[in-house]
Amino acid sequence: MTDLQTTDEFIAQASQMLGQRGFTTDTDTMQPWLTDWRGRYSGSALALASPANTDQVSDLVKLCAKHNIAIVPQGGNSGMSGGATPDMTGTSIILSLRRMNAIRQFDADTRSITCDAGVILQHLHEAAEAERLRFPLTLGGKGSATIGGLISTNAGGTQVLRHGTMRAQVMGLEAVLPDGQIFNSLTPLKKDNRGFDLKQLLIGSEGTLGIVTGATLRLLPEIAGRCVLWAGLDSLIDARKLLLACEKMVGERLEGFEVMPAHSLAAVLDHLPAARSPLQSAHNWNALIELVGTEDTIASLPDLAENFLSIALEKGIISDATIAANEAQAEQFWLLRDSISPAERAIGPAMQHDISVPVERMAEFVTETVPEVESRFPGTTAIAFGHLGDGNVHYHVLAPAGAIRGMWEENEGKEISSFVHDLVTQWGGSISAEHGIGQMKVMELGRLGDPASLSILRSVKEALDPQGLFNPGKLVPGTA
Amino acid sequence: MTDLQTTDEFIAQASQMLGQRGFTTDTDTMQPWLTDWRGRYSGSALALASPANTDQVSDLVKLCAKHNIAIVPQGGNSGMSGGATPDMTGTSIILSLRRMNAIRQFDADTRSITCDAGVILQHLHEAAEAERLRFPLTLGGKGSATIGGLISTNAGGTQVLRHGTMRAQVMGLEAVLPDGQIFNSLTPLKKDNRGFDLKQLLIGSEGTLGIVTGATLRLLPEIAGRCVLWAGLDSLIDARKLLLACEKMVGERLEGFEVMPAHSLAAVLDHLPAARSPLQSAHNWNALIELVGTEDTIASLPDLAENFLSIALEKGIISDATIAANEAQAEQFWLLRDSISPAERAIGPAMQHDISVPVERMAEFVTETVPEVESRFPGTTAIAFGHLGDGNVHYHVLAPAGAIRGMWEENEGKEISSFVHDLVTQWGGSISAEHGIGQMKVMELGRLGDPASLSILRSVKEALDPQGLFNPGKLVPGTA
Repeated sequence: MTDLQTTDEFIAQASQMLGQRGFTTDTDTMQPWLTDWRGRYSGSALALASPANTDQVSDLVKLCAKHNIAIVPQGGNSGMSGGATPDMTGTSIILSLRRMNAIRQFDADTRSITCDAGVILQHLHEAAEAERLRFPLTLGGKGSATIGGLISTNAGGTQVLRHGTMRAQVMGLEAVLPDGQIFNSLTPLKKDNRGFDLKQLLIGSEGTLGIVTGATLRLLPEIAGRCVLWAGLDSLIDARKLLLACEKMVGERLEGFEVMPAHSLAAVLDHLPAARSPLQSAHNWNALIELVGTEDTIASLPDLAENFLSIALEKGIISDATIAANEAQAEQFWLLRDSISPAERAIGPAMQHDISVPVERMAEFVTETVPEVESRFPGTTAIAFGHLGDGNVHYHVLAPAGAIRGMWEENEGKEISSFVHDLVTQWGGSISAEHGIGQMKVMELGRLGDPASLSILRSVKEALDPQGLFNPGKLVPGTA
Repeated sequence: MTDLQTTDEFIAQASQMLGQRGFTTDTDTMQPWLTDWRGRYSGSALALASPANTDQVSDLVKLCAKHNIAIVPQGGNSGMSGGATPDMTGTSIILSLRRMNAIRQFDADTRSITCDAGVILQHLHEAAEAERLRFPLTLGGKGSATIGGLISTNAGGTQVLRHGTMRAQVMGLEAVLPDGQIFNSLTPLKKDNRGFDLKQLLIGSEGTLGIVTGATLRLLPEIAGRCVLWAGLDSLIDARKLLLACEKMVGERLEGFEVMPAHSLAAVLDHLPAARSPLQSAHNWNALIELVGTEDTIASLPDLAENFLSIALEKGIISDATIAANEAQAEQFWLLRDSISPAERAIGPAMQHDISVPVERMAEFVTETVPEVESRFPGTTAIAFGHLGDGNVHYHVLAPAGAIRGMWEENEGKEISSFVHDLVTQWGGSISAEHGIGQMKVMELGRLGDPASLSILRSVKEALDPQGLFNPGKLVPGTA
């Protein structure tokens, strides 16, 4: 049988198995899902499969294994590293989980929710809020990102400082393995020591080891209110001091701690004409701090926030500070933070790096490497901002004035990224803090990854997916 | 070369590599480490290796791989499932981590400590306390259990309800892989999405995939004080209600919630002549509750505890209750809980099962299965006690009066265990909640494990340890 014959046979069988709603080879229908949302990666696919349930996913995977068809799993298609975009060969199928979007079970006693992989993050938030609970992970793409995608990429966001990444939210998991078997740990056991924890292997594996079809997630009591603070600082070293003082003084009420340099704030204020700076004068660095209270602690929160800021001012850690007077102003403060990326994109081309270093070395890392990058690539501006408390910094290098968008990135830009990744590796950091490896960083991981880690990664991949059909070319170097 | 020759050569090379302190074939020296601490499992070994550092572990593992010598890693030899005891063939070596017992680094800012695998839990507690911090995991064997063993078995204990198992404490890991490579993630990155999390694979793998040589662990602020409560209840269903009410009312100040039936308390009071029951009259069930406060919350703790108990009394959830008047009495309450196992052992032979079921079903599970077990095996008494909040119940079945110790366990006892494990599996639970699989439950895991999970377990084992030299016969069914 030729390849063409087996492909035709596969299409015929898959069509029959999944029906019209569940399987299409129509190019117009597939089009939006062949390019990632930022338009950086494009590919081609044999078909788009949209199974209705876990059994259908399992059957489809078995059929693919039989016909040696590669599978690219896809959730909301809002990934940052091209992990859900197929390659150009057109020989793989996209397996969309979007049709599987039911909330299966809600348990107020154990504060947990079990849902399909295709549930959109925002819908999960709403479902939790309706029960006066909350799901403690959020990020910019919440309107499209799906639970399955968030698990497969171990997504982060702005609440990791206190609540951890997606890994910390997953109590149980359901996934289809490369041989079509269904792995099910959805009934959460708080204690289970039957060997190493298999669900941990699937979290963050970007669809290379299994396709997440459902999950049981933890929920937390709703918050009763928040205090959002803005502080001006001289240096990032001071920001680190402020964070430590804050952790000591407000403990578990600290929910977010973000930093941004003067350059970023100025860019945002230019970009958003209606926005105003929270403080009168400009400072080298700005910290955005969110404190939250539950029903029993909310009353004391404003006093605690004021006290904390007075002590920090007194000790000279900060130069100036303010507290959002109301919820509208709190939203304004966060809008400034969330607008950094678009504001800097408006200025000109930039290379963006999602990196982390050990928390205690982050201030030092930024202080030392920013001038290093700028002197090695004259005319560039290096900007670091983001989650100081997690050691996760978004490290952008802005092109020199006059650089041509599209061309600069492919040339000097690539060189800059390699340089930044080298620096991060030297500082004991990670070239992917929260966006994952996907296809974007798979070569860099191969180049810079620790040999022992890479060999485990490759061995486990080969053991679980010997045919190499699950998301080929992503995450695991040298398996394209 | 015959097997004998290669063995002799191995011994000569290992002796030279590790020196007299690090390598012995002396039977007297080996003796204490050939039997587990409860005397249930005995084995034989070619040699006892005690490397001084991680590089020596790596070199030894490479030498073993070359000569095809199996390795049984051992920490404090205080495991509950025979996981650190070699088999009877005498062809494997014991690799003791006890000589590697240094605390490598302490960081008060990030509240973390990095130490060798051989550090004993109690020493870790003391090191943390000296810095006014605490390590939030403890258990009965803390005077001998080592950090490496606790990680390899993902140990639990009495603080899991709030702080999680050992997995939740591990920020970074160092381990030697079966090919001798050193995997090192000791510099903890709070966010690192370079693929699935390899350290998660090693936690709980009982030395079958890697030998843990060091770890970075999280510490918490010291507690300023505690309130220990004792309540009498009519049923386990009420205990579950009490737990939910408690979680709602005291939130994160709830540190422990243990339950024990009337039978267990009576056995303990018989066993410890000086002990007194906390309450005047006997109750079907007893709950032991520990609330803790930090510096800023300790002042309100006694009032909170009193309020909580009055509401529970008022609602009829509990029949009677008391609060330990001082630290000495608090210790007394905990002593009652910790003496259940020895007290019941004093009565006669018993089969002990470390099982878990979904938290919300535990009360129902115990209520339904206890009469089932007792009627299936006439004359036995089934007793459940332990960590209600974790769904983890220690489920003991006491022999009928007159049963002969040693003989009963091997006959009716084994049948009882199979029956209990069948029940647990039917209820969606785990046959090992916290003690691990080791050699004790490896057959049962093979019999009752979910096929998809077992196939991942076996594939990963074969991928990382193709020679099958790391702790053979433990954890992974069918690899002896």
